[in-house]
Amino acid sequence: MAEPFDPTTHSHRRFNPLTNEHVLVSPHRSKRPWLGQIEAPQPVDLPAYDPKCYLCPGNARASGEKNGQYQNTSVFVNDYAAVLPPPGPIAPAAPHPLLTTQPMQGACDVIIFHHRHDLTLPRLTLEELGKVIEEWIRVYKMRGAQDGIKYVQIFENKGSIMGCSNPHPHGQSWSLSEIPTIPATELQSLKRYANNPDVAPSDAPRGLNGRPCMLCEYANFEVQDQGRVVVQNEHWVALVPWWATWPFEILLLPHHRHIPSLVELTEDEKVSFASIISRITIRYDNLFSCSFAYSMGIHQRPIPLKDGDSGANADDDVAHLHLHFFPPLLRSASVRKFLVGFELMAEAQRDISPEQAAERLRACSEVHYMNSAAATQ
Amino acid sequence: MAEPFDPTTHSHRRFNPLTNEHVLVSPHRSKRPWLGQIEAPQPVDLPAYDPKCYLCPGNARASGEKNGQYQNTSVFVNDYAAVLPPPGPIAPAAPHPLLTTQPMQGACDVIIFHHRHDLTLPRLTLEELGKVIEEWIRVYKMRGAQDGIKYVQIFENKGSIMGCSNPHPHGQSWSLSEIPTIPATELQSLKRYANNPDVAPSDAPRGLNGRPCMLCEYANFEVQDQGRVVVQNEHWVALVPWWATWPFEILLLPHHRHIPSLVELTEDEKVSFASIISRITIRYDNLFSCSFAYSMGIHQRPIPLKDGDSGANADDDVAHLHLHFFPPLLRSASVRKFLVGFELMAEAQRDISPEQAAERLRACSEVHYMNSAAATQ
Ligand SMILES: [Zn+2]
Ligand SMILES: [Zn+2]
Repeated sequence: MAEPFDPTTHSHRRFNPLTNEHVLVSPHRSKRPWLGQIEAPQPVDLPAYDPKCYLCPGNARASGEKNGQYQNTSVFVNDYAAVLPPPGPIAPAAPHPLLTTQPMQGACDVIIFHHRHDLTLPRLTLEELGKVIEEWIRVYKMRGAQDGIKYVQIFENKGSIMGCSNPHPHGQSWSLSEIPTIPATELQSLKRYANNPDVAPSDAPRGLNGRPCMLCEYANFEVQDQGRVVVQNEHWVALVPWWATWPFEILLLPHHRHIPSLVELTEDEKVSFASIISRITIRYDNLFSCSFAYSMGIHQRPIPLKDGDSGANADDDVAHLHLHFFPPLLRSASVRKFLVGFELMAEAQRDISPEQAAERLRACSEVHYMNSAAATQ
Repeated sequence: MAEPFDPTTHSHRRFNPLTNEHVLVSPHRSKRPWLGQIEAPQPVDLPAYDPKCYLCPGNARASGEKNGQYQNTSVFVNDYAAVLPPPGPIAPAAPHPLLTTQPMQGACDVIIFHHRHDLTLPRLTLEELGKVIEEWIRVYKMRGAQDGIKYVQIFENKGSIMGCSNPHPHGQSWSLSEIPTIPATELQSLKRYANNPDVAPSDAPRGLNGRPCMLCEYANFEVQDQGRVVVQNEHWVALVPWWATWPFEILLLPHHRHIPSLVELTEDEKVSFASIISRITIRYDNLFSCSFAYSMGIHQRPIPLKDGDSGANADDDVAHLHLHFFPPLLRSASVRKFLVGFELMAEAQRDISPEQAAERLRACSEVHYMNSAAATQ
């Protein structure tokens, strides 16, 4: 006779309704020994100012241009931008119907989070984090208002194992003439949900025009269930999603009302946004007592609404603001997860379950290990 | 006035008709300086036999079981399998319609390519490579015939930067009770193409029942165009696909007739398969004079046809055998591409164009650098 299902023992797959992909979970395997690559430790004794850093105040960048003597945040155009401003070239004819090309224009910005070389988001004050949030909003509005820009992607790569070449705290913003694959897929899923007559009524907030919002519904369920919640406050919840691919992946989103983008945040919501970013990134650093590497990205309405937009594309206006944190570390500061082999050829796969990961993160302190009594003695 | 489009200068995106995803190409950016992580060099002086290797002949594995004194290839069940044999548990009820679970059963096998610890595919003789191919066919048939197995994924992770913990030449095979996300998506795309009445007639081979096969059509076009072809022989073509994500990605597939799986290969086709695998993996090693890391996977009919199958699921029987090689190295043995940030949050992105990558690989020798006159003097 078949056993009852135990999510901490039995291999199973979970469906990600945002991307329509599955992840294979093998929780019984999380104790296998590690024989593979060990990451080099990150430098810990960084100077507050590094004369060789191209992001520090006053220093010269690759273009020869000098950074200002900025305080807190600063934004400039990436010297090695992946896309360049319009006008673009004429779209070429396809050599075969299977081989298509779309020219892409846009802009790539670097967003410096703080003037100090040695800090990171978890080590900023809430006031300083508030300034980072304002900078994200400013860049999103500025780029999103430009002609031909259809999408703004704000993200942060943290740590050399994520390919980040400079520890100076910074993120990026890529603004593009087309909506990229992943947000386009997510928006498709949200739209399908908003228009699905079979969605059962619930006490979750509703999206625009009273339509169901999949992410409002999901956040509402998780706040009630608590099994995958890491931290929450009045407006926001940070959780390890049911379908998480990365060991300690976090989805951060508003749970109390439908919010399409950063632009719609109230002052209260910004304050609690800064607070929850601080709390989760401190827990991340404390998990393995290291500067915890990740890629973080903000998904929201592709660009801010323009005057007179309201109603025009209302059918497509289904975005609910959320942040993804994808961290590669698996079991220590030096043992990472690799997205290779089966995962590149077949399907995402994880060992520890999302519930186990959430439990580990809930057990972490919210006092940063570098500021703890033991560290400062 | 807009410029004419130049694929070596202008940012553009290309569509991948297998996965329905785009890749953003930024060819103007391929000369940016590298400031990031440098990979540790791989050990080069490996012994032919390593007493501590769990794959070498006669040695004990984690389970305590000892490997036989095998010659050439050997296959055993992975001691840390991601899925376990049936019977599985009862599928649980979903706690919410958005949180679904499917139990997964199956088997994970390790396929050793050669008894010598210090060899790799590019350093095997064609006869030895032929034995690896026979082992792939044997495992695919054996697992694919088992009850409840719906899919067999054969793959190889090579190199510590791909998370491969042991340099002993080996691959894996994961056999599963469901078809995973990526091959399911590819099969969907192939099926749509096979049933598309708008596909223009061409001189490419046709799929089963005379339907169009997207991969036969694509291979046929590339063999005529030559711009992305790395090497080809009578039966096979290895090319950097139009939509390649990894810098030196290769798609290897038969171009002269429609072949659903390894089982259908003739003796001649196996001989030329061994030859082209040797030629491309030697070129890979020669590109940066190192043991070139990659993930390789075989996509084919999910499991071999069973007796009496013919006709039953003919509509879904659209697979065309092909191999993907996804190598992370970008510009030297120590500088890799990272799939992070924008790529995790928005869309795959590459700097050098697929045509430039193919040209680089075409310029490589087919004599392995370790066997060249200079190396053996
Ligand atoms: Zn998202
Ligand atoms: Zn494929």
